[in-house]
Amino acid sequence: MIDFADIPPLDGRAGAAARRRQDLLTKPPGSLGRLEDLSIWVASCQGDCPPKQFERARIVVFAGDHGVAGTGVSAYPPEVTAQMVANIEAGGAAINTLAEAAGATVRVVDMAVDRDQSPGDATTTHKVRRSSGNIATEDALLLDEAIAAIEAGRRIADDEVDAGADLLIVGDMGIGNTTAATTLIAALIGTEPVAAVGRGTGIDDAAWSRKTAAVRDALYRSRDRRDDPVALLAACGGADLAAIAGFCAQSAVRRTPLLLDGVVVTAAALVADRMAPGARAWWRAGHRSPEPAHSLALAELGLDPIVDLGLRLGEGTGAAVALPILRAAVSLLASMATFTDAGVSQRLGPDLS
Amino acid sequence: MIDFADIPPLDGRAGAAARRRQDLLTKPPGSLGRLEDLSIWVASCQGDCPPKQFERARIVVFAGDHGVAGTGVSAYPPEVTAQMVANIEAGGAAINTLAEAAGATVRVVDMAVDRDQSPGDATTTHKVRRSSGNIATEDALLLDEAIAAIEAGRRIADDEVDAGADLLIVGDMGIGNTTAATTLIAALIGTEPVAAVGRGTGIDDAAWSRKTAAVRDALYRSRDRRDDPVALLAACGGADLAAIAGFCAQSAVRRTPLLLDGVVVTAAALVADRMAPGARAWWRAGHRSPEPAHSLALAELGLDPIVDLGLRLGEGTGAAVALPILRAAVSLLASMATFTDAGVSQRLGPDLS
Repeated sequence: MIDFADIPPLDGRAGAAARRRQDLLTKPPGSLGRLEDLSIWVASCQGDCPPKQFERARIVVFAGDHGVAGTGVSAYPPEVTAQMVANIEAGGAAINTLAEAAGATVRVVDMAVDRDQSPGDATTTHKVRRSSGNIATEDALLLDEAIAAIEAGRRIADDEVDAGADLLIVGDMGIGNTTAATTLIAALIGTEPVAAVGRGTGIDDAAWSRKTAAVRDALYRSRDRRDDPVALLAACGGADLAAIAGFCAQSAVRRTPLLLDGVVVTAAALVADRMAPGARAWWRAGHRSPEPAHSLALAELGLDPIVDLGLRLGEGTGAAVALPILRAAVSLLASMATFTDAGVSQRLGPDLS
Repeated sequence: MIDFADIPPLDGRAGAAARRRQDLLTKPPGSLGRLEDLSIWVASCQGDCPPKQFERARIVVFAGDHGVAGTGVSAYPPEVTAQMVANIEAGGAAINTLAEAAGATVRVVDMAVDRDQSPGDATTTHKVRRSSGNIATEDALLLDEAIAAIEAGRRIADDEVDAGADLLIVGDMGIGNTTAATTLIAALIGTEPVAAVGRGTGIDDAAWSRKTAAVRDALYRSRDRRDDPVALLAACGGADLAAIAGFCAQSAVRRTPLLLDGVVVTAAALVADRMAPGARAWWRAGHRSPEPAHSLALAELGLDPIVDLGLRLGEGTGAAVALPILRAAVSLLASMATFTDAGVSQRLGPDLS
């Protein structure tokens, strides 16, 4: 079994101080909209007001292959997973560019890519297996493998926080992973596959039908395991999704704010919040993707995304695009002048005319 | 009379090259969503693919007072305009923090703040008058003053582009300016005041009623000048709005991409696109504010905002928050690896199963 420590509450005192400070800054109260909310959230996470700018924002991309990818549910062949892991390591992927632009660093972790573990390659240290099973017909993982993957995600979160990470972003890379993610979300929310399945990397109608059938079959196979998050990850998740779930849960245990990315990460986060109830308070949603299951999962978690730019790439890209906005929110609360500082007149009373 | 040079078209060849290049990058085609569109737009503006990162992003905030502010249409007293101009000059306002976060610099221009021109103060060089008239009962400006303000905006755009600005952002500061902006938008679109008037800096119901009545009266007064943009700016705009209109039009003449901000800037931009038809092609909308008139004007201009964060502050803040996203779009097109570079397999054909 896996037990996460109780999720610590956010610091209500720091949050209240941040809200009071927002009202002292030289702008109409509330006029910075969601930037005010985000700044208050960061202050509540850090337990301090004004909050400090993030000095070590860290993006961890969890990669894995999925047996279901062999059944025509993706527009890309499975070997792209390993190729893209190499591309991220070489700095050529979208997430590398966005990380640099946002002042973050990237680490990619091979949880179940369909290639061998290499002794000298740190990327494969936490690897659980080569690919995960085809969830339409078999469990993605043995229960022990699911536990090992969750533990790996937990350990990686610990390592990153111990190394000084003050903001975490999670990303995913894996051909076929939106099929598994959609299944997890549909299972936990109780949605029909047709309402949840999206176009992933850009599939045509025929592939969408195959994907929807795979989700339906995986849901049926796992129908008696919906109340057991670990068993559900084993039944219709994958080692990458299990590791993300462990990572998201542990980041909350470690009081470290985290930005979620798209449908894959949010599916795993939904599972994580079942394993570690309340973890969601330490997360914000970076973006909204066009995947229907993503919006369903965000609504279930009560998270309103920071941006909505039609991104459907994964890798953490949607969260990385949102990071400068989160940074801006922190800077505003920390740096703006107050009415008193600047000698600006306050708001008129109700008898303003 | 004011004549703007013909608006040059965007570079279709550079745009097409950018679209082709997007499809070579290591990601599913279209998966970067609006970031792809934005990168193509920047390439089309610069006439080059890949586009260059902005080296001199410049924010110009046009400030002015409005006679209508004396009639209880704002939650703040009119003297706040001058105080906030000083706050921006001192670096304490929201726009200063956001500009620094986004790698831009800020200039504030006093077009009609209710204070005297000071010979040694460059901020007041372009000043047209002290405050603008109360548009509910009188014209905001004499026609000559409107022309002078538009010319000032045009000259400021020229100065900034000549000084090397490769991206312009426009902002506004002025108690009462959303009343004038809403009137301009309602006049040009033909909307009822109740459908256009918003809460501005955060007014209560009584002030909203006064504001709506002021817009109604200004619309009635200016009803025969809706087809003449300059006369309309004189009737129910203001020197700040006229200068913004000149600035937005001239930035397009000078082939310089520009990010619009909220309702005040977008109202002036709507007028600018009437004075210089086609100018809108050189603009993108930074954000969507909660002001109803803002959404009406954006729809009329055919512009879809980059972010929607509930900001209702002005100063250029909504555009400044969007700037890192525009920068990210440019970086992606310039820096990501192609499928060939990275040795990543291409998309499967239609017979992918």
